[in-house]
Amino acid sequence: MPYRAPIDDLLFAMRRAAGEAAFAPGGLYADLDAATAAATLEEAAKFAENALAPLDHVGDRDGVNFSVGTVTTAPGWREAYSLWVEGGWNALSAPPGHGGMGLPLLLAAACTEIWNAANISFALCPLLGQGAIEAMEIHASEALKSAYLPKMISGEWPATMNLTEPQAGSDLAHLRTRAERAGDGSYRLFGQKIFITYGEHDLSENIIHLVLARLPDAPAGTRGISLFLAPKFLPGPDGRPGARNDVRCVGIERKLGIHGSPTCTMSYGDTGGAIAFLVGRENEGLACMFAMMNNARLSVGLQGVGLAERATQTALAYARERRQGRGPSGDPAPIVEHPDVVRMLLTMKAQTAAARGICYLTAASLDRARRLEGAQAQAAQERAGLLTPLAKAYSTDIGCEVASLGIQIHGGMGFIEETGAAQLLRDARITPIYEGTNGIQAIDLVTRKLRLSKGAAVWREIDDMRDDIDAMAASNDALFVAMSRRAAAAVDAFERATDFLSATPDPRGPETLAGATPYLRLFALARGVTLLGAGALAARRAGDTAAQNRIVTARFFADNLAVAAEGLERAIIDGGDSVGAGLALLSSGGD
Amino acid sequence: MPYRAPIDDLLFAMRRAAGEAAFAPGGLYADLDAATAAATLEEAAKFAENALAPLDHVGDRDGVNFSVGTVTTAPGWREAYSLWVEGGWNALSAPPGHGGMGLPLLLAAACTEIWNAANISFALCPLLGQGAIEAMEIHASEALKSAYLPKMISGEWPATMNLTEPQAGSDLAHLRTRAERAGDGSYRLFGQKIFITYGEHDLSENIIHLVLARLPDAPAGTRGISLFLAPKFLPGPDGRPGARNDVRCVGIERKLGIHGSPTCTMSYGDTGGAIAFLVGRENEGLACMFAMMNNARLSVGLQGVGLAERATQTALAYARERRQGRGPSGDPAPIVEHPDVVRMLLTMKAQTAAARGICYLTAASLDRARRLEGAQAQAAQERAGLLTPLAKAYSTDIGCEVASLGIQIHGGMGFIEETGAAQLLRDARITPIYEGTNGIQAIDLVTRKLRLSKGAAVWREIDDMRDDIDAMAASNDALFVAMSRRAAAAVDAFERATDFLSATPDPRGPETLAGATPYLRLFALARGVTLLGAGALAARRAGDTAAQNRIVTARFFADNLAVAAEGLERAIIDGGDSVGAGLALLSSGGD
Repeated sequence: MPYRAPIDDLLFAMRRAAGEAAFAPGGLYADLDAATAAATLEEAAKFAENALAPLDHVGDRDGVNFSVGTVTTAPGWREAYSLWVEGGWNALSAPPGHGGMGLPLLLAAACTEIWNAANISFALCPLLGQGAIEAMEIHASEALKSAYLPKMISGEWPATMNLTEPQAGSDLAHLRTRAERAGDGSYRLFGQKIFITYGEHDLSENIIHLVLARLPDAPAGTRGISLFLAPKFLPGPDGRPGARNDVRCVGIERKLGIHGSPTCTMSYGDTGGAIAFLVGRENEGLACMFAMMNNARLSVGLQGVGLAERATQTALAYARERRQGRGPSGDPAPIVEHPDVVRMLLTMKAQTAAARGICYLTAASLDRARRLEGAQAQAAQERAGLLTPLAKAYSTDIGCEVASLGIQIHGGMGFIEETGAAQLLRDARITPIYEGTNGIQAIDLVTRKLRLSKGAAVWREIDDMRDDIDAMAASNDALFVAMSRRAAAAVDAFERATDFLSATPDPRGPETLAGATPYLRLFALARGVTLLGAGALAARRAGDTAAQNRIVTARFFADNLAVAAEGLERAIIDGGDSVGAGLALLSSGGD
Repeated sequence: MPYRAPIDDLLFAMRRAAGEAAFAPGGLYADLDAATAAATLEEAAKFAENALAPLDHVGDRDGVNFSVGTVTTAPGWREAYSLWVEGGWNALSAPPGHGGMGLPLLLAAACTEIWNAANISFALCPLLGQGAIEAMEIHASEALKSAYLPKMISGEWPATMNLTEPQAGSDLAHLRTRAERAGDGSYRLFGQKIFITYGEHDLSENIIHLVLARLPDAPAGTRGISLFLAPKFLPGPDGRPGARNDVRCVGIERKLGIHGSPTCTMSYGDTGGAIAFLVGRENEGLACMFAMMNNARLSVGLQGVGLAERATQTALAYARERRQGRGPSGDPAPIVEHPDVVRMLLTMKAQTAAARGICYLTAASLDRARRLEGAQAQAAQERAGLLTPLAKAYSTDIGCEVASLGIQIHGGMGFIEETGAAQLLRDARITPIYEGTNGIQAIDLVTRKLRLSKGAAVWREIDDMRDDIDAMAASNDALFVAMSRRAAAAVDAFERATDFLSATPDPRGPETLAGATPYLRLFALARGVTLLGAGALAARRAGDTAAQNRIVTARFFADNLAVAAEGLERAIIDGGDSVGAGLALLSSGGD
């Protein structure tokens, strides 16, 4: 199951997300001309295709091995990680201060898609490290930064995020891991963390744990959480890994997928306390954690896009090879000539393209928020905030749907592990769960993001969609005029649903919460159909060689997927009462 | 992960499918009064809950072992199979002639749901045997029947279905397995079959293979296929297993799910030819095979229902236990009090109930076709034919969707194999593929079933749905009147889509085929919303203790799921062109 990074599609999505002018002199990405962007993606593609993708199946089949506190990764993984660090890939998007290359997040997003398509289990290690680096950049002291950030940024010392405990999953108010002041400015940690991705492994000489814990005098709830850094090995005076810290892996999980990556239970302070250093201020760990998670949410969305892309490539290749039934000539025809198979392939292609568009738009907004100033920066930050739950939840939902369709196209072969189609679904299935379940994303969207600046963010987004619709309607091309009508119907439905949810008196009331998930999907359909339609029109005008492909994809999305919009609107506006009745029944013991 | 057979729900679905009067004296099931039906299900439930369900996880974890031609099942499976045969469960629905109990298919359907919910890998063995028994009953000679049927019906000699070959999956025209006349009325088989479920195992003293093969002088294509019976051991003069036949298992598959059941590659005739006997007439094997498969399609649909039921039970139990976030009182609340979780649980419940209703209606129609005569029997046969693709495809599609939601409700725990939620998705994922992929079901629906008696079957079904709508509309109950409007909108959309597809000039043309899958889903939504709504109304009128539950489920289906109907109608009527454009692009090498 080879993987080829679809570089043209990625560059196209980047240009669409940022606007063509952004890459010109004086534009947002004046530091990144189109040729440099393409060259970077081509190098990334080479590394992903040649070094990472071949290890994907090995990692799935062999998994990782746990034995008395040590974790051994699958054959070839250590070597690949060394090449990763040497190639400088880890430092891509980190700020220049401590060795980062400071490339735009938009380019980093495209690379993240590539790594995760090639080998999500491998890519998870740097993905989580990225969030830790971001939190350190914002919140850590200069001393802590100089001691740790250069190695974290290079990837020599990958970082982990230690949030979850058995009694506290999505809800961090109930964390029990204890931090004590040691008197010398450092702290000692005691407690157990679960589901720690790459909590222990043999890929690197050291591992840096970022850990949420509670001080003895901390207020209850989430306002009493602090963030600490606890290395596996404490750096000696020469900066090299020295004394072993009091933190160890006490077990790993047997999981549905991402077998190549260890999911660890970590124990802190079994023999006196794990030496740790405060990141940010005491009891302000939650803000630090959000810095980690916001970055990670977009990255997890990109995992969904990457897996969807790979599933689509794999299914299309199979559909061209496998012959079943008869074609128009009466001879056995490749199944890519069967309309029902084409429907599945187009569903995969269209959803992948829409999710990619949404994720890249989020990344470009984050770049704008960083690089612009004043009201422009604030608007961009709000847009990124609004789009992040969409990027995370829609992309990972369709990641699973697309991987499942990929199995279906393979028929019986899809159920056989050697084919690789099944692994993509098993791997994808975690993405709607971690970094905030997709339900939590939807709730974040309707309760917080919808009310950013009194709703200005969502209304600006609707205006932007209307601009895309107007462009299609004004095209004088019957195909695009028809697409503009479908897109308008979807955006109208989204606007009515937005009106409805904005008007509910209690922004956290059951009516709002019951409609959260269909609202997020409706938003994605409206945003997807406008992005793809306007993109296809631009491609046709530019004489893009892939224009026909983009038109087919956009048209399929409009005529077959976006048509679900009004049904979702009904579920949001009229469906909440039945959810309320169900809640009353089920929570009182009825079944 | 215990399983409790929801006996009240099953009895309710049986009564709704057959009509209350059917169980009264003089009714269709006069031989089966309500008390007997309930007692049978209770016994079946006991066996499934105590003997089968506990082996489900063991089978998944340990799988089956292959070594030089022999296959060993997981610990405890042999003993359970002996109990299965001793309990007489295998003989439930077989006709009385050769030891069958001749119970109605409707009751057998409820039992099939129970077995598969408890342990699908185990239940697969008798499930496939059932189809073989049916084919033998209809097509085999009396001599063959008396030699094999009693042991096949008792389950002592379970049967397999040998259709697939590497080059011929869904398309049997290209079968190459060779049959030669031996001159004594018997035949010799040569060739290889793949994906043979329970092709070899240690559960029983003998295995009976039904094999599709081609005679040397057979016409090309599907008109040249014959069906043969080839036992693993040839019965000796005493009727006991005697000489070993020339058929062996040469390998098993490593699969995504159903690990407890062996999926075998079978080799026939490596040392002179496997002795085989003709079932039916030469070159008429396809008709015999349809007899096997029709039965199996409904049964696979019931696998979907069973897995969906189990996933729902498991998720509901977890949602009542797991606490996250705060409830109205400010204390940690079980997640069953979160509206977004309730939306998922109701989606699971409602789809499971709808799929069950459709499957049981199919089974009841088959009973009517068998037990009535003349036009009534023919109409019932056509109805069963119309509903079978729906029963198979909708139930297995939602089986996967519901199992996936079950994982989501478990959060991170859902991804951990020990929890059991992930196994349900892995097991369910084969059901949309085998016994005719769901795409093939949809194509069968739109190309053949839609035109049964010039469309009379589908229009009778629409009339039946309208009767349900009228009952709700006439209820003088605002809730049901509102439900009748939603149901009418769904049925109207289905009717328009039916008009559209019935009017296409070429019943196998690309327009029809492109709309097949959304049409099947639309049919299921229309049939589901009317079945659930009318059922809930009947439950309320009867003062059923579960009436409130059924109303909540029906209402949720109407307000949140059936609202997708018009979007599907649009995809069917307007979406085909974009599929055609995609076919042209993808089959010419574009990507």
